Amino acid sequence: MSRAAADPVESAYPEHLREEVERYLAALRFSEESLTTGLEEAMRYSLLAGGKRIRPVLALATARAIGMPQAEVMPLAGAIELIHTYSLIHDDLPAMDDDDLRRGQPTCHVKFGEDVAILAGDGLYAEAFRHLLSCQRSEPRLVLAAAAELAHATGVNGMVGGQYVDVKEGSVDGSSGLRRLHELKTGRLIGASVMCVLLLGDVGEPATMAFRQFVAELGVLFQIVDDILDVTGTDQALGKPRGSDERHGKHTYVSQFGVDRAKQLAGESHRTAREALGRIAHVDSERPYLPTELEQITDFIYTRTS
Amino acid sequence: MSRAAADPVESAYPEHLREEVERYLAALRFSEESLTTGLEEAMRYSLLAGGKRIRPVLALATARAIGMPQAEVMPLAGAIELIHTYSLIHDDLPAMDDDDLRRGQPTCHVKFGEDVAILAGDGLYAEAFRHLLSCQRSEPRLVLAAAAELAHATGVNGMVGGQYVDVKEGSVDGSSGLRRLHELKTGRLIGASVMCVLLLGDVGEPATMAFRQFVAELGVLFQIVDDILDVTGTDQALGKPRGSDERHGKHTYVSQFGVDRAKQLAGESHRTAREALGRIAHVDSERPYLPTELEQITDFIYTRTS
Repeated sequence: MSRAAADPVESAYPEHLREEVERYLAALRFSEESLTTGLEEAMRYSLLAGGKRIRPVLALATARAIGMPQAEVMPLAGAIELIHTYSLIHDDLPAMDDDDLRRGQPTCHVKFGEDVAILAGDGLYAEAFRHLLSCQRSEPRLVLAAAAELAHATGVNGMVGGQYVDVKEGSVDGSSGLRRLHELKTGRLIGASVMCVLLLGDVGEPATMAFRQFVAELGVLFQIVDDILDVTGTDQALGKPRGSDERHGKHTYVSQFGVDRAKQLAGESHRTAREALGRIAHVDSERPYLPTELEQITDFIYTRTS
Repeated sequence: MSRAAADPVESAYPEHLREEVERYLAALRFSEESLTTGLEEAMRYSLLAGGKRIRPVLALATARAIGMPQAEVMPLAGAIELIHTYSLIHDDLPAMDDDDLRRGQPTCHVKFGEDVAILAGDGLYAEAFRHLLSCQRSEPRLVLAAAAELAHATGVNGMVGGQYVDVKEGSVDGSSGLRRLHELKTGRLIGASVMCVLLLGDVGEPATMAFRQFVAELGVLFQIVDDILDVTGTDQALGKPRGSDERHGKHTYVSQFGVDRAKQLAGESHRTAREALGRIAHVDSERPYLPTELEQITDFIYTRTS
């Protein structure tokens, strides 16, 4: 990728964490009886379609950074990926973005029908909470706090609200509106992947503040690169036709600033996120944080090609 | 109503509980900023369309029955009605039942568009969990248990799974399949309206068992009467055209057994539910339960005309 060549950074993605997430997701079952196995099939079709699993990997990387055994946050990490999958299924629906391909495969409604796709999304969201609330072994008050944050991040003031603003585009004005749209639509769930782990780990306020600055910037970085890839990526790497943002008349960092300026903004955003991580390492003198995998993920998000 | 005349029971619905629910729901706000107020408008349009509020009223009545102050379960009761409203919005969608009217008003997608209706449903479900997890003031382990039960009852092995079986009708065989469909689609959420309160109240196993028999029968009763009303009710009382089950080719108690036998089954189901309530009153010799409002709701569900 040309940007990576112009501004080289290491981008060794923590594949070992992705593999653990993949195994964990593949072992999940939802239906307790034969009547609903067809619904489970549609849910697992979308859930197991691959991808980098950035959100659950972020959760595991955060656990490692604060010295929590990563296995302890697996139920949370799994729940977050179920929710991300649900959002993709609903966003792809004919009444929304009407996309036929996702990661090179037919989207859920193309494969199973629109009715089943709506229910597969609904089911994934319910099972995400069921899984988190019944399988996450931490102090109950901490699980409650993390689950409440996850609901907040994925409701009207997060993911669902952001998708609403996106489909009602007219309500967004200029670059601050664009930034806010993406903070809600993608930033809040990416942020929750980190913040919910801090809640489970009962980390104090100074460290939480430092992480908050990091995730805010990481969400912006993710979105700028996403918008750039929609015009510079290949169909094959993207798993869907390039240029879908423009065809949908979407307001993006590229439509707002042009590709070159968007690449500059991505570079600035990457530096800011890395600086925030630098501060995290030293925020607690008694308990040094080791955000190695978080640095790798940040670099990967900047240099990814799909 | 002719059935009520043939088999008269008292049916004084606990209106004071319904009014408290109505006030509570009307005071709920979801959006924290102007960008998403349009989404909140669609959510509140469907949420505040009236109705008997049977599920949250059941929750309050259960609290009274076990001697818990009813105000203590209001967040749970509210969350349950948000979830019920979400299920109605998604069930009415063009890809599902394609209904234009609900309680005499245009359905959410007719009024706000299909994209907004899908998101209004998604938003209501998220906000239900956010509300329950952040506002329910009970011991954290009890809130966790109640929230996990609510997620279970509304996911693949409950409401969403039941709707899947309903749209894929072919997978249901005979009367046992029909009963199972409705246990999932409507029975589990009606049951959760009672069982989640028992979890919050930390009620022991003998009482829980007795309540479980009651709610299983109450769900069946609800559905049989629903199916009868679809052919005997008036358009005005139903708030939608009569006979929609038949037009949708739905498998119902009436299509399976005919109206007369369905009415007999409703009578039997009502008696069984009332007997279960009778046992509840005496299940704990140290702590008498007073299921007065639960009796009223059971009678109302049997004799209702809409």
